[in-house]
Amino acid sequence: MLNEGLVSQIAEELRGGRDGASLVEAYHTADIASALERLESDEARIAAFDAIPEEEAAEILAYLDDHYRSMILERSSAGKIGRIITHLDSDDAADILASVDDDIAEKVLRSVSDEAPEVVALLQYDEESAGGIMQTELMSAPGHFTVRQTIDAMAGKEEEIGDIHNVFVTDAQQRLVGVVPLRKLILAAQDKKMRDLVGEGPLVYATTEMDQEKVAQLFKRYDLVSLPVVDGDGRLTGRILIDDVVDVLEDEASEDIMKLVGANEEALDAGRSALQMARYRLPWLASSLVAGFITGGVILQFEGALKELVALTAFIPIIMGVSGNVSTQSSTLVIRGLATGKFNPEALTSYFVREVKIGVTLGAVCGVASALFALIWQGSPMLGVVVGVSLFLAIMCAAILGTIIPLFFRWVNIDPAIAGGPMVLALNDLTGVLIFFGIATSLISYLI
Amino acid sequence: MLNEGLVSQIAEELRGGRDGASLVEAYHTADIASALERLESDEARIAAFDAIPEEEAAEILAYLDDHYRSMILERSSAGKIGRIITHLDSDDAADILASVDDDIAEKVLRSVSDEAPEVVALLQYDEESAGGIMQTELMSAPGHFTVRQTIDAMAGKEEEIGDIHNVFVTDAQQRLVGVVPLRKLILAAQDKKMRDLVGEGPLVYATTEMDQEKVAQLFKRYDLVSLPVVDGDGRLTGRILIDDVVDVLEDEASEDIMKLVGANEEALDAGRSALQMARYRLPWLASSLVAGFITGGVILQFEGALKELVALTAFIPIIMGVSGNVSTQSSTLVIRGLATGKFNPEALTSYFVREVKIGVTLGAVCGVASALFALIWQGSPMLGVVVGVSLFLAIMCAAILGTIIPLFFRWVNIDPAIAGGPMVLALNDLTGVLIFFGIATSLISYLI
Repeated sequence: MLNEGLVSQIAEELRGGRDGASLVEAYHTADIASALERLESDEARIAAFDAIPEEEAAEILAYLDDHYRSMILERSSAGKIGRIITHLDSDDAADILASVDDDIAEKVLRSVSDEAPEVVALLQYDEESAGGIMQTELMSAPGHFTVRQTIDAMAGKEEEIGDIHNVFVTDAQQRLVGVVPLRKLILAAQDKKMRDLVGEGPLVYATTEMDQEKVAQLFKRYDLVSLPVVDGDGRLTGRILIDDVVDVLEDEASEDIMKLVGANEEALDAGRSALQMARYRLPWLASSLVAGFITGGVILQFEGALKELVALTAFIPIIMGVSGNVSTQSSTLVIRGLATGKFNPEALTSYFVREVKIGVTLGAVCGVASALFALIWQGSPMLGVVVGVSLFLAIMCAAILGTIIPLFFRWVNIDPAIAGGPMVLALNDLTGVLIFFGIATSLISYLI
Repeated sequence: MLNEGLVSQIAEELRGGRDGASLVEAYHTADIASALERLESDEARIAAFDAIPEEEAAEILAYLDDHYRSMILERSSAGKIGRIITHLDSDDAADILASVDDDIAEKVLRSVSDEAPEVVALLQYDEESAGGIMQTELMSAPGHFTVRQTIDAMAGKEEEIGDIHNVFVTDAQQRLVGVVPLRKLILAAQDKKMRDLVGEGPLVYATTEMDQEKVAQLFKRYDLVSLPVVDGDGRLTGRILIDDVVDVLEDEASEDIMKLVGANEEALDAGRSALQMARYRLPWLASSLVAGFITGGVILQFEGALKELVALTAFIPIIMGVSGNVSTQSSTLVIRGLATGKFNPEALTSYFVREVKIGVTLGAVCGVASALFALIWQGSPMLGVVVGVSLFLAIMCAAILGTIIPLFFRWVNIDPAIAGGPMVLALNDLTGVLIFFGIATSLISYLI
């Protein structure tokens, strides 16, 4: 956690009942939000929150973790929520409205609909689309405006818009025709027309229905700080700022990691109870329990071989553990490569061929090592061969399964991250055990 | 991958030998870089790269994946590298110099040291520190400058600096005293002094030796697009832009994910050979191989029990699989929580207590399920009890180990992500097997 000392100090001052107005002058609202989360009870949080002037309280609300935000909203009147969201940028306001109960949202909307029609408009978009993360506050100018006219127009709006990095230039139909960064505006002659300041080269923008992950990739690829969003007719309807995209990137990374281990992104939320957390994590455990039963059942099919040679049991953890590790590596590489855009779908065949080669190499090294170990430990050359060959084959299968399963999921338009960890692992345990006992049983007469 | 069609089209034009100068006018250099990576051979990549005008070639080099960048640099003369890096921002130039062989770097440095002393200066900083990712190109103004003077000064430097979002205001000793965003500058009266434009509230900056992960957290926390960097005496020495931080965030996330599965971040690099990839992945496999041998050895200590009751074998995958899943979930939650700063170190005890509660809940649910299954499957109530109690205890241990191990690593200042996946998993397999066979052996007379 950043700036531990600072946050502790603010929390101490909140506990001591320092006046909210003087607090927001001394500290950044992001730090006050963290301090608020540290307080001992929801009552203390509510009391501290209510003591903060509404404009800064609105910002703090936007910084709070979902859990604490919901808690505060649940205990606030529709009137107060309405006043708070008029202080916020339209995207944050829409997020807050989307997170409260429908009847409260409706009450709030009635009270603010005159001042904040854009917030109502934003609620129609899918939360994970460009429309869902954009804000309507932006600086635009028609192409025939001069630099002077544009700056004059900006003067009245700066307070409301907040950060301005670019002026978006539009035509007579409000269609986006170009982007002028402020550094260009500031250095241009006062009577220059905006349309003449627009740079050459392709124009980068998002459409309202574009997926937020794609929006994030646009920001990364073209090193953007702000991106215009247009509707189906090419009309400028909003903008997305880099700080919202940073949140998207982090959330997507957390989501992918959590899916890999079979948990939910919400499981990172510190405010949840043990019971809620257990519920998030249980579905994947249930699937790994079922997979375990099946693998166990398969093992018992080889009861005869096991009775004759108990030592076989000792190799189950090796086969399962090592090939499980290989399959998790392979599937994670594909999933992460797809998510970051580093994976080149044109090179699918060569990627697959390489993965098979990797499987062969890893299988050969681990196979020989385990064969030697089995030979030395159990004194049976034949057992060494069985263990080595089985591990070699199991690792090759693991590399192939780990690569193919996420690609298959992607192909049928299911998030490949879901296919990561647990599912690949379960399938892999099964193949590994089948290969090992299959070979061991067919060679059992040489083993005992 | 973003904009598949566009990249394929550019690659097609590169293959067709389209003139480099017209290419860079039509497309963004980021897209040309992706297209270059798609070409069939290194020879084709070199030929296409050499045909592109040097200024844009420099940008393309900065966009290329490490692997391809090294390949091109290895085959370029020191003179050409020197010319290329003079076109780049100082941070990108320093990165390139740091990535080539020492003798080439020295040659290049001699040829550019007059024009680019700042690049040489940047090489002294640790690659993962604020100094290592900052650039020296920035816009600063002394506090006594007027707005007019500042804008005039900017006019001569805009080309060299590139993106400008803020003017950093300094005192007579070059010490940072404040930050003025361009939107404030553009709207201020021309004769206003810069020092009077500096906002109130705490000043956010990095020191050169600050870790890049901490820098990234500053950007996230305070929604920054550019951050001033000061030396030990508080003098302004550079700035960091958000697009470099986005790369840091993504790299750190990839690094964490790769460590979780026991691979290297380099394993995401598409240009590596199968042998290199295998080498990256082998160390973790080796450790899981050793862990498997140990667990296997422990199992054979219970040979007697296994001989009397082969059915015990069938429950090894369940115990190992389910409790392994729990430990991976617990450790991943702690590791990701620490990395994103969502984990509140003040609440350590309450987090731990909650994790134990979660372990108990998950253990109880899975324990009962597996006990019922064992009872129905094997028709032995006592075996049901043994399996259920073992799984309950194994899951509790898994939750506790998964939480404690990463925290312990953090406490001794080792990256907790290393302690994730494989290590926790190996320890967990061992405890699970010990618990299960320990209980089963002591109750063996009731089981058969």
